[in-house]
Amino acid sequence: MSVRIPYDTVKSTVKQIFLNLGMKEEDAETCATIHSQSSADGVESHGLNRIPRFVDYVQKGWINLQGSPQLVGAKGAVENYDGQLGVGITNALFCADRAMELAKVHGIGCVALRNTTHWMRGGTYAWRIAEAGFMGISWINTESCMPLWGSDEPGVGNNPFCIAIPREDGLIVLDMAMSQYAYGKLGVYRLAGKKLPYPGGFDKDGNLTDDPGAIEDSRRILPTGYWKGSGMAICLDMAAALMANGNSGARMDQNGLGSCGSCCQIFIAYDPYLFGSKEEIQTMLNERVAAADATHPDHEGGHVSCPGERTLRTRAKSMTEGVNVDEIIWSQIQSLAAGNMQAEDIASK
Amino acid sequence: MSVRIPYDTVKSTVKQIFLNLGMKEEDAETCATIHSQSSADGVESHGLNRIPRFVDYVQKGWINLQGSPQLVGAKGAVENYDGQLGVGITNALFCADRAMELAKVHGIGCVALRNTTHWMRGGTYAWRIAEAGFMGISWINTESCMPLWGSDEPGVGNNPFCIAIPREDGLIVLDMAMSQYAYGKLGVYRLAGKKLPYPGGFDKDGNLTDDPGAIEDSRRILPTGYWKGSGMAICLDMAAALMANGNSGARMDQNGLGSCGSCCQIFIAYDPYLFGSKEEIQTMLNERVAAADATHPDHEGGHVSCPGERTLRTRAKSMTEGVNVDEIIWSQIQSLAAGNMQAEDIASK
Repeated sequence: MSVRIPYDTVKSTVKQIFLNLGMKEEDAETCATIHSQSSADGVESHGLNRIPRFVDYVQKGWINLQGSPQLVGAKGAVENYDGQLGVGITNALFCADRAMELAKVHGIGCVALRNTTHWMRGGTYAWRIAEAGFMGISWINTESCMPLWGSDEPGVGNNPFCIAIPREDGLIVLDMAMSQYAYGKLGVYRLAGKKLPYPGGFDKDGNLTDDPGAIEDSRRILPTGYWKGSGMAICLDMAAALMANGNSGARMDQNGLGSCGSCCQIFIAYDPYLFGSKEEIQTMLNERVAAADATHPDHEGGHVSCPGERTLRTRAKSMTEGVNVDEIIWSQIQSLAAGNMQAEDIASK
Repeated sequence: MSVRIPYDTVKSTVKQIFLNLGMKEEDAETCATIHSQSSADGVESHGLNRIPRFVDYVQKGWINLQGSPQLVGAKGAVENYDGQLGVGITNALFCADRAMELAKVHGIGCVALRNTTHWMRGGTYAWRIAEAGFMGISWINTESCMPLWGSDEPGVGNNPFCIAIPREDGLIVLDMAMSQYAYGKLGVYRLAGKKLPYPGGFDKDGNLTDDPGAIEDSRRILPTGYWKGSGMAICLDMAAALMANGNSGARMDQNGLGSCGSCCQIFIAYDPYLFGSKEEIQTMLNERVAAADATHPDHEGGHVSCPGERTLRTRAKSMTEGVNVDEIIWSQIQSLAAGNMQAEDIASK
């Protein structure tokens, strides 16, 4: 069961948790905003649902509240930062903003961040880049959580990849992990007693299955597009580690810093009006989206949409009717905000 | 049935076709090399198999043998070219090389090419970037050939996306179209009387199917990873058109210039040794590949490999045993080389 909580209540409650943790006022405000927005956009898995684990990681010393991006080196349109295992959200926002500053000067800007922590919702930074009027690409590498194609044990991260398109009549943002379904989604289907819409992994006997519980048991989650998502995931991992001179997923597997601990993140921003006027570019984008959305639906009453369009509708609903929050999660959030900071117990539930 | 033809014979025969067409000696040499290498690497669909259609397009005036990249504008690490509907291969090679030159100066280099033609095998440019010691990303937008998720008619291109990793002990190169299977692959399975390994599209009744002929009939090829490949494809389309100030796939659908006529292509190159030494980066890459390849196979005798590793083995075999060519294709190639240039008839077979 879920409840709808006013956005401002969500945000102030979440902010209190971060203040209880000892986070600086400004960082607490930023992180509360991002987590609340993620839930408001319908990405609850990396919004409120993720906060107990964040608190647990801080308490374990896996996230350093005093860490912040330190410049390692710079050349032309590229900068490299060490995140000092600081807060993933504030580290990543800083780097996304720096990429846009570099793009203003060089046409394109690229920031490679190493030694940082979980950035929560991957799309956060692509939305920020698109909102600021830039086109962007960003991705992350993570510890192994998905078997490579042809293997039956985790060997690569699900390494989310994002694309930001600054269409003014509705931003277009792709936020795509390399597994067909997130583990969080498997749990949602299992608890609802439902099968997955499409096979999402293998059972313990190696059969492709749409039974979410069987996949949770085997840990053999399916790469999106079988061999394709597997190949893209390993390449994104190497590219991120190479660009940031940081850890590959294989090294993260060894260091015991939890999900995304000491990972690399890449932020590329591009000035969309280098060679075309704003009117030309926006007209092209509007035509493109209109043509896509107008393609014939595959069932009566169906509707084709571009990435981000549904998110904007979910956001609007959250702002008028309240943010959708699982009841159990909301009670955990309230308890943490009230100062009951036994996060490890909560996060393990 | 296929035959194995010595690489040098393949290349010289193919070169003669391009010379017959009136291509400049230097361009004929380049294009013959690229098409022959693609077949030698096992990508026959965009190697020799594609040549009759290329000849047909030149004869139709859809490809301009005199076209070459013209600088539209430049800012910092970015350059924009108009390809003048010139030869896709030579246009794209020029731009990949320019991206690397820009990366030498600015750390990262980005070339956006508009108004060009089919670049044939997408991986060609990623391999070139990796061979030159750079990390790279490249992609293209195309006319609609795949339904968007939720639609039953083509609405987006299958927009290949490539990543190049300059690992010296074996380059790692991803070359990934956004459809689960290429149409060419469906034909191969159909002719062999085989089902696809996994569902590759919908039949005319809207059922997901592994019957290649049923998908060819419906034209409802499946995006890789269902909604994921669909979303990535439309975002790659918009990103390419925006960056190059060129055509979106929706505009290409209107212009009647065949496959990829007047498309956009993006080439990004990154200097891998900006912040780490060559030894550090190569050690990281070798560890990463070794860990991936060592993950437990899902069946006895199985072997996990990273993108590009199998290609290198295929290439080595082609160079010693000859290039694998379909017998019918080889007779078409020989006929074109002998001056029988009725390409439209051949290409339609």
